[in-house]
Amino acid sequence: MKRIQQRHILEKYGTNLFNCVVNLYFDYAATSRMEDEAIGEYVKTARDYPGNPSAGHALGKKAKEKLEDERCRISSILGVGSEEVVFTSGGSESISLVFQDLLWNVRPGSVIIGRLEHDAVSSFAPLLKEKGWRVNYIKPDRDGKYDTELLSSMIDRETKLIAIQSVNNVLGLVTNTKEIADVVRKAEEREKRNMFFFSDSVQAIGKVDFPLHEEGVDGASFSAHKIGGPRGTGFLYVRKGKSLRPVASQGGQERKIRGGTENLPGVSAMRKALEIAFENRKEKEEKVRKLNAKLREGLEKAGIRIFSPVSASPFVISIASPLPSEVAVRMLSDKGIYVSAGSACSENRKGEAMEILTSYGIRKDEAMRAIRISISEKHTEEDITKLVDEITKLGA
Amino acid sequence: MKRIQQRHILEKYGTNLFNCVVNLYFDYAATSRMEDEAIGEYVKTARDYPGNPSAGHALGKKAKEKLEDERCRISSILGVGSEEVVFTSGGSESISLVFQDLLWNVRPGSVIIGRLEHDAVSSFAPLLKEKGWRVNYIKPDRDGKYDTELLSSMIDRETKLIAIQSVNNVLGLVTNTKEIADVVRKAEEREKRNMFFFSDSVQAIGKVDFPLHEEGVDGASFSAHKIGGPRGTGFLYVRKGKSLRPVASQGGQERKIRGGTENLPGVSAMRKALEIAFENRKEKEEKVRKLNAKLREGLEKAGIRIFSPVSASPFVISIASPLPSEVAVRMLSDKGIYVSAGSACSENRKGEAMEILTSYGIRKDEAMRAIRISISEKHTEEDITKLVDEITKLGA
Repeated sequence: MKRIQQRHILEKYGTNLFNCVVNLYFDYAATSRMEDEAIGEYVKTARDYPGNPSAGHALGKKAKEKLEDERCRISSILGVGSEEVVFTSGGSESISLVFQDLLWNVRPGSVIIGRLEHDAVSSFAPLLKEKGWRVNYIKPDRDGKYDTELLSSMIDRETKLIAIQSVNNVLGLVTNTKEIADVVRKAEEREKRNMFFFSDSVQAIGKVDFPLHEEGVDGASFSAHKIGGPRGTGFLYVRKGKSLRPVASQGGQERKIRGGTENLPGVSAMRKALEIAFENRKEKEEKVRKLNAKLREGLEKAGIRIFSPVSASPFVISIASPLPSEVAVRMLSDKGIYVSAGSACSENRKGEAMEILTSYGIRKDEAMRAIRISISEKHTEEDITKLVDEITKLGA
Repeated sequence: MKRIQQRHILEKYGTNLFNCVVNLYFDYAATSRMEDEAIGEYVKTARDYPGNPSAGHALGKKAKEKLEDERCRISSILGVGSEEVVFTSGGSESISLVFQDLLWNVRPGSVIIGRLEHDAVSSFAPLLKEKGWRVNYIKPDRDGKYDTELLSSMIDRETKLIAIQSVNNVLGLVTNTKEIADVVRKAEEREKRNMFFFSDSVQAIGKVDFPLHEEGVDGASFSAHKIGGPRGTGFLYVRKGKSLRPVASQGGQERKIRGGTENLPGVSAMRKALEIAFENRKEKEEKVRKLNAKLREGLEKAGIRIFSPVSASPFVISIASPLPSEVAVRMLSDKGIYVSAGSACSENRKGEAMEILTSYGIRKDEAMRAIRISISEKHTEEDITKLVDEITKLGA
């Protein structure tokens, strides 16, 4: 379908406030507007594949074929095997499937969790502890790199899971994932048993260079709405040879890892969003890198403290605004500039960004003024200039 | 938006095979085609509300308001409080949230589960048993009614959960939900503690008369795609005063019961599908009742054994086809008639329908020939005649 025709059709359905009014949306790490082409795919699949992929009749088989075709296309974009992609309702559920696998274990062991993890990961700690698991935390250096010797020494005979994110959601820190994977592989050899290295990759896939196979992770979570795909759709990558047991099979869909009727239109839309994200991904990352550099330069000139190191993902930058986070977010919002109070979900989990920032070594009084800016290749240099101006004005 | 305009727009997006070719789709209990108007709502919300409902800026607040408006509209359709509706990714996840609450309990107790439950419920039994829970099953009579005295005597000091579906997915049996709720309330008084009566209501809500408050259930699961809504969207009803603890809060959305960014476009589409389903619901049910009676009459005349009792939901009817289930499904499919091999998801869980049917007292050799027909108000008398003809021909 031609883009121009599609645009015409889609405009009938909404005022498209986003494209018209919002060119200063800097909260892409929280969510992104669904791409028109992804919406188009959603609609097309919903209409053309109405059967249940598990049904034995022709409509069911047609839906099943479509589902497997989408899986094949997605795994080919990611450079992984199609049997390694498990469709889920998003990042949180993907993470949950990994942690729930532990609950099956008759005998509790230990897990190692990164100190700067998203709440979707770290909120599993209380139950694990309650169930007798030892939860050990590991902290990265200023660049987000984890000490491999320390990690190696922390892995004991009981360690079942190592959960360390690929890109931090508040600071954009890029983890040395491959090195961590190597440590886990060596520990497996040493201990002569399997472990699971899970990496929440919601802020990595489709943005920075993150080839799942080469990074060596055993599991990775992805959420489509972070890159222009639909809400309520994502996947869990599970490396071939590694398996997960769900709390209950619930129908046995998705290799018995995730039960429930498959969200086929959502999967089609996610595939389209991934196609768009991976089209000239490097060029887009390069563009964002330049915008980020311009932003840093402007902020530094204005004497604004930048929390994120230069080595961080160019898509995410956390700074100390001149005002308390929530005041700054509101005042910028009034000017049509949308940033986050440190983390995506400030209202529900006010403490999260704060905890991540202070764990990273930022003083509490500075962390209370944190705002997170997340950039997209859709931004222009003028957008960045405007953003710097308005942030600077907050201090006036 | 006018329907005619909407139709015109939507047709550009898909060949709409369903409406053109498939008037003999009799697998509505497995899934239904998403209503055009629901697709329209999905698109409109995706375009007009791009923010993350948890974000503190204006786009976030606008999305949050929309989400709460949708919750309000949905709860008003259902006749419940808006604080009683927790949005989820569908029926399976809603069920999972209830069972996972049990895993938090430090001390295992006992649960009572209906013998004819969907795999989405019954597949939790192995883990519960492994974790030290006692799982007791209760069987209904031929009409799907549960013996209240028996149930009352089964509830002991350790009983935490009673899980009995509202309408059976294979046979259409309608449960005496209200009576069960009364038994649970009396047991609570007797034991002086809270219990939880959960009812999987995926085949009830929007189809048969099922007023959640009056039925007295503490929890109920719903899946939007069963009634013309989107895949991957549903809700868990949790009666006011009852609470559930998730395995992990994961961001704290949905009253800390279900973490993850809310699928706002999906929720809007679900609300539209519910509006459509509840518009003249009684008349639709009456129409389906007549179609069901005509179907029964035709099948009986042809000497076909009907498994479902007359008292069952008119939307679902299971019969013994003249051929093995899967052969019958395939042969009917070749004629453009789509029915199920006993259960929705025959390929993934071949055993499920069989187990439900034999538990109901049907001989194994007959159960092996079971097919499930699920009717919609969209069907005509001619569709029923054609269906009876083709089923009859299978035996020729």
